[in-house]
Amino acid sequence: MKQTEQLHINFPHLRALTPFAGAYNATPWLGDQTAKHNRKLCESLEQAVARCGLQDGMTISFHHAFREGDKVINQVVATLAKLGFKNLTLASSSLMTCNDALIEHIKNGVITRIYTSGMRGKLADAISHGLMDEPVQIHSHGGRVKLLQDGELKIDVAFLGVPCSDEFGNANGTHGKSCCGSLGYAMVDAHFARHVVLMTEELVPFPNMPASLVQDQVDYIVKVESVGDPAKISVGAARVTSNPRELLIARFAADVIEHSGYFKNGFSMQTGSGAASTACTRFMAEKMERNGVKARFALGGITGSLVELHEKGLIEKLLDTQCFDGQAAASLAHNPNHIEISTNVYANPGSKATCCDQLDIVILSALEIDVDFNVNVITGSDGVMRGASGGHCDVAAAANLTIVVAPLLRSRISTVVKQVTTRLTPGESIDVLVTDHGIAVNPARPEIRARLAAAGLKLVDIEALYEKAISLTGKPKAIEFTDKIVGVIRYRDGSVIDTVREVKES
Amino acid sequence: MKQTEQLHINFPHLRALTPFAGAYNATPWLGDQTAKHNRKLCESLEQAVARCGLQDGMTISFHHAFREGDKVINQVVATLAKLGFKNLTLASSSLMTCNDALIEHIKNGVITRIYTSGMRGKLADAISHGLMDEPVQIHSHGGRVKLLQDGELKIDVAFLGVPCSDEFGNANGTHGKSCCGSLGYAMVDAHFARHVVLMTEELVPFPNMPASLVQDQVDYIVKVESVGDPAKISVGAARVTSNPRELLIARFAADVIEHSGYFKNGFSMQTGSGAASTACTRFMAEKMERNGVKARFALGGITGSLVELHEKGLIEKLLDTQCFDGQAAASLAHNPNHIEISTNVYANPGSKATCCDQLDIVILSALEIDVDFNVNVITGSDGVMRGASGGHCDVAAAANLTIVVAPLLRSRISTVVKQVTTRLTPGESIDVLVTDHGIAVNPARPEIRARLAAAGLKLVDIEALYEKAISLTGKPKAIEFTDKIVGVIRYRDGSVIDTVREVKES
Repeated sequence: MKQTEQLHINFPHLRALTPFAGAYNATPWLGDQTAKHNRKLCESLEQAVARCGLQDGMTISFHHAFREGDKVINQVVATLAKLGFKNLTLASSSLMTCNDALIEHIKNGVITRIYTSGMRGKLADAISHGLMDEPVQIHSHGGRVKLLQDGELKIDVAFLGVPCSDEFGNANGTHGKSCCGSLGYAMVDAHFARHVVLMTEELVPFPNMPASLVQDQVDYIVKVESVGDPAKISVGAARVTSNPRELLIARFAADVIEHSGYFKNGFSMQTGSGAASTACTRFMAEKMERNGVKARFALGGITGSLVELHEKGLIEKLLDTQCFDGQAAASLAHNPNHIEISTNVYANPGSKATCCDQLDIVILSALEIDVDFNVNVITGSDGVMRGASGGHCDVAAAANLTIVVAPLLRSRISTVVKQVTTRLTPGESIDVLVTDHGIAVNPARPEIRARLAAAGLKLVDIEALYEKAISLTGKPKAIEFTDKIVGVIRYRDGSVIDTVREVKES
Repeated sequence: MKQTEQLHINFPHLRALTPFAGAYNATPWLGDQTAKHNRKLCESLEQAVARCGLQDGMTISFHHAFREGDKVINQVVATLAKLGFKNLTLASSSLMTCNDALIEHIKNGVITRIYTSGMRGKLADAISHGLMDEPVQIHSHGGRVKLLQDGELKIDVAFLGVPCSDEFGNANGTHGKSCCGSLGYAMVDAHFARHVVLMTEELVPFPNMPASLVQDQVDYIVKVESVGDPAKISVGAARVTSNPRELLIARFAADVIEHSGYFKNGFSMQTGSGAASTACTRFMAEKMERNGVKARFALGGITGSLVELHEKGLIEKLLDTQCFDGQAAASLAHNPNHIEISTNVYANPGSKATCCDQLDIVILSALEIDVDFNVNVITGSDGVMRGASGGHCDVAAAANLTIVVAPLLRSRISTVVKQVTTRLTPGESIDVLVTDHGIAVNPARPEIRARLAAAGLKLVDIEALYEKAISLTGKPKAIEFTDKIVGVIRYRDGSVIDTVREVKES
């Protein structure tokens, strides 16, 4: 074409510009009415895998919004095993008891590396006892995005289960038969993955908008029988507790919040899904109504309890990375101020801004907390992994007031220990420990201790809690580990805050 | 730290992993209550520019959602001129008559390259007469995103005007004093730019969500007096015409649509903001009501006329890259099925999917159309630039039925010509031309011609329209150009479809 030639002569730095070669040159599907609509649709998962060019040694990813109800991870890995793939890195935002089936695929060499926020059940037990050659990388929710951003974790193919999608890949978790609610984890994979495969239960007409995963992020779409059982999302999360010890802790925690100095109009909070913190939410509702205090937002995993406060007008906005129950998922679908956010926006320390940095108060749990306030949420008192990093260290670092709630004893074993078996959240991030035997304030926060003392709350030193526990249970026998590292605990910034060693067979 | 050392010994490929070095190591602002909230806020535009590290020769970008009411582009360029910057590339999604002030900064060497969808007024006149050494790159809305995606266009700093933002940079165009509505153009810049500076009229409390520009995309925030005058968004767009010639064209166009074969339940359309196409929208509403036909969606620039159809239930969803008037902006704020989309989702041919590919019917305008159906929407009959590429070639290529509406004559000059002065959209993409002197169907679409003929519409050959115009006006004198290339017309895929040469002084 004459014009382009002249352009190249006059402006040599524009030599890369090529002449027009037809309206459909870059978009051949526009000349084909079938391809125009169907070019992303795959007959089967196998076809999607082939079209992505998945190869041995690559990295596959998943979200865990369906939690114990997930049906995507096992389904995909079984298919990849059948197809003969080996040496894959599995990067799921988390793994649950429902993922026991992975043990076989690890034994067979299909999966040789794992990145996850946590593990439970037989899979966690097997890995804790040395199933894998390579240690599992345990990251926080925010830290996972940092690993993706920094390039340590490179997703080749993300397999993302959704209840509904249109033929272009516009999908959300709030419509269709199996609603999981927020797709906050999946949004990150859709952003970073080289290829994105949507697995959907329903194909609905275009445009399925507003969409959480958007058509310009999605490569292929496969219709499958089931992606998850939403009834199992809330397994393990107790909505209402009548356990007097948990109610006592919840009441103490609500008192701590009220007198902490952070309980004022426009405050913000995160409570998670534990029984005590859910009960605490309800006690706080009473205090908020009594004192005319409203929260500007609640953050993180959203529960029905928080939705009730929102619908009463006590919490202005819900910023939701994950719905912990059906009530939360339903709210996300119809409450305009219940807003879905990605884990990048939620908690990635490398993001241009994270919501957790705006947080006043967070209530977190612990498997163990030591006299330096370091917290373990991954290994049990037997050294076996049975939990998840979650947003624990992310939010603990960022919030103005970080409260850990835990019973002093669980099954005759002390929660307060001399030194945690595994450190996930550093003690410098924890401000207050609330137990059924009293409230311990981190000496680094004397002003909070003074306020709580002035309010007449039952304060104790954390060492005293430890001594009390020991006096009741006796000193626990040290767990025996081998030298083999089976887990690496990554702090939210990617650094190594601890390692987990193989538990010696007893 | 012992654990990390042991890890490096046992797993040499994990040597890059570093030990934990404190909770705030990667996020120092978390230790400082002021920095935690204010770290993005700048005292002045000058401070934001300095913090971005802008240098001579870099690329700055803008969106044009305020159209003729924009107050950001001139303000920023004047500030950069005052600061002594030279040799900048200006990449605005478009430029308007309100940008005449740029002439001075081009003369002074502040701006030496321009990427834009179009130009008008004195700036366009000066550039058409050789103001710049380097030709302006004219792209379509979809094509602009392709240039960003392909890396030809690399934005160093995007200066994005918004009516409101919180301290983290969550912003939208639907709240605040100066609402422009959809931020579909700005969303792309926020995604691709190395640094994003928000210029906002109001700072509102966190969390200003749902947000169109999200906190994890924004680096710095400057509060300014004014970012735009929303009253001037609709300048040039006629909402209701009483011009009998335009009404005639509109009625013909509505008839074409009705009998084209694409007018059925669940169809989709794009109409833009021209007087004839806006009138056509109203005629179509009658036909839709009469025939019980509803549209699944309307796409692109959204007008009050389309909002009325949406609110009547005649159009299910509005997919909005740009609000053409205040009624559209208000609708975006409160109608949940009026959905903001980025220009990447709208029309980028390199995107994983674009909405325009789903489009049945589009009505477009033309400054000139030639007997091969090629369309010119940039240069006037005097060869001077006075228009914009917009989404013209994007949507024309993708839609099932592309209709161009135009009066046969404008000020005694024929719209139908032997060969367009400048080609922006290739004739292969245009299916039907509707003029006040009859309807011409592209010979490549005999099935549409047959349907329209069967319906008794007034069909003519495009050559006959040309001959008729010539018989009324005489053959126009050829425009005299020099050899200097002042504009490069980029097709949506980035290829060069034409060039614009300097108009010879008369």
